[in-house]
Amino acid sequence: MSIPTVLPLQEQERAVRVQHAIDHKTKPLGALGQLEALALQIACVLGSDRPLLREPQLLVCAADHGIAAQRVSAYPAEVTPQMVLNMLAGGAAVAVLARQQGLALTIANCGVNAELAHPRLRDLRDLRVAGAERGSADCSLGPAMREDQAEQALRQGAALVRELPGNALLLGEMGIANSSAAALLMCRLSGLPLADCVGRGTGLDDAGLLHKQAVLARALAANRQAQTPLQILAALGGLEIATLAGAVLQAASERRVVLVDGFISTAAVAVAAALQPAVLERCVAAHASAESGHARWLARLGLRPLLQLDLRLGEGSGAALAWPLLESACRLLNEMASFASAGVSQRE
Amino acid sequence: MSIPTVLPLQEQERAVRVQHAIDHKTKPLGALGQLEALALQIACVLGSDRPLLREPQLLVCAADHGIAAQRVSAYPAEVTPQMVLNMLAGGAAVAVLARQQGLALTIANCGVNAELAHPRLRDLRDLRVAGAERGSADCSLGPAMREDQAEQALRQGAALVRELPGNALLLGEMGIANSSAAALLMCRLSGLPLADCVGRGTGLDDAGLLHKQAVLARALAANRQAQTPLQILAALGGLEIATLAGAVLQAASERRVVLVDGFISTAAVAVAAALQPAVLERCVAAHASAESGHARWLARLGLRPLLQLDLRLGEGSGAALAWPLLESACRLLNEMASFASAGVSQRE
Repeated sequence: MSIPTVLPLQEQERAVRVQHAIDHKTKPLGALGQLEALALQIACVLGSDRPLLREPQLLVCAADHGIAAQRVSAYPAEVTPQMVLNMLAGGAAVAVLARQQGLALTIANCGVNAELAHPRLRDLRDLRVAGAERGSADCSLGPAMREDQAEQALRQGAALVRELPGNALLLGEMGIANSSAAALLMCRLSGLPLADCVGRGTGLDDAGLLHKQAVLARALAANRQAQTPLQILAALGGLEIATLAGAVLQAASERRVVLVDGFISTAAVAVAAALQPAVLERCVAAHASAESGHARWLARLGLRPLLQLDLRLGEGSGAALAWPLLESACRLLNEMASFASAGVSQRE
Repeated sequence: MSIPTVLPLQEQERAVRVQHAIDHKTKPLGALGQLEALALQIACVLGSDRPLLREPQLLVCAADHGIAAQRVSAYPAEVTPQMVLNMLAGGAAVAVLARQQGLALTIANCGVNAELAHPRLRDLRDLRVAGAERGSADCSLGPAMREDQAEQALRQGAALVRELPGNALLLGEMGIANSSAAALLMCRLSGLPLADCVGRGTGLDDAGLLHKQAVLARALAANRQAQTPLQILAALGGLEIATLAGAVLQAASERRVVLVDGFISTAAVAVAAALQPAVLERCVAAHASAESGHARWLARLGLRPLLQLDLRLGEGSGAALAWPLLESACRLLNEMASFASAGVSQRE
């Protein structure tokens, strides 16, 4: 699972060639804005001058978080399994959008705190982790997971991606209180102050936000011993975040395009990047969410979001909404005429 | 072609009902951000609690501008007919994106300065105006059009929309120097200073921008007599802008959703709104372009853009790129489960 950090010469040459092709399309130089950089990136990730996105996979990883007991979320923890069932039934936003966009939707139980029952339960992938089958521990009291559990989740995320077809992976997640885990990871991995990392999640009021900050400060204090990225992931992360991080590492190593969703998906990417920085070259940020730390974290990671629609739902909904822009970028690169081929005059 | 400015009671009741439905979908309140307002607006425009967008029509109006002779554009005027042919041949960005999104593409010759020849020329709609068949006059010297010519263009735009099926109209345009016409209309219709309205168009350098501002100042001085919206349109506008304004008036009066593209399409909407303010309720801004005055003008008109991708191509490319978001908004409203139907717990 390694990605060379210096592009081999043939890849550098490809980038020059593709940029030249973009610059000679029938449009003013740079007139397609951010889509031009996106087309170039996808061409480089897929290793093709005429990139075609095939069989995009939207992976939603779900898990519960012990820290939910500290009332850091506006919603009760029972919503995690309820929303997993809602996704299986097709009524959740991410299921609606996946149908619209033709995205294959895989939902994985990475540690949901319920005995799930649903007619379509066979569609749920079982990626539970030994000893954490019902979710992570309360990290305000100690580590959320053991290191070997985090490693198992990473391995399982990677193994799942190896099974999936296609050359694009869209990230999604579900887990009440997982914006707390993501904020803690942001704080430790980016070095930014905790206050810059903590937001309202699903809709805390001012008092709820202050309480969440206090609880998360205790979690940081209770897990000072964690130093390596893996230790930090285990101490402060969540099972769905660890599984997604493994999926990102695997997808990037296979040269799939990784489309990042919101704050929690960004946490998974940040963990993957802490383990393997070059994964970021293969990641596209779908959107900057309304969660206060998200735009700042994306900027730290060097990822420029495609959409800014004040979304704060997670699930992969923002990734699904941005997906057509990736298709557009490829089609514009592949199908637009050049000034020469169309007989259009260049600028004076 | 009139739209009531006060909603009848049944429409007010619909808005309340649809907002209630959105608020009870399985997501935190407001978590779908700008898409929630978009879903509500589309429901109100189409007059349906379960709005379905049918047979979207992308209308590209093309014309030449006499003011191009003053070298206000980075590109020569011959590019207008060349790009019309490129659109007919399917190699222009808007043609690529229309294919991707399943948008019916209509290209109209509203006064292109060329004897066009192309195997697919029968696909080009002839909406030329008597006495201005090859484009508008140089408005730095006097009016771009006579009022009766502007009226004919408005009528022809409206008549074309009456012919087109579907319930959504996407706006596009082509015309070298038409960012000059749009800037002049912005200045006169919004009351903002000229410097706030003039941008680099297809890519002027600093000297080119200063020259463009000086030419446009002369155009304003040469057309001080224009006072009514129709007079201002005739004096400073263009044939494609007038035709699109007529299309917008007709589409709005038929309760079609109007998806606005960039700076020049916004000029058409601003003209239509000056004639009939309620059209704005039926307009959605696809994006804020890189043209400097565009975001400011949208804000003045009360239109919030969906995308900010630094596009500055026109043609309808931004409208085509934003189209899937309108589809998503409708599907989320129509297909998402409610808390009650999915058995999901509400917030604590």
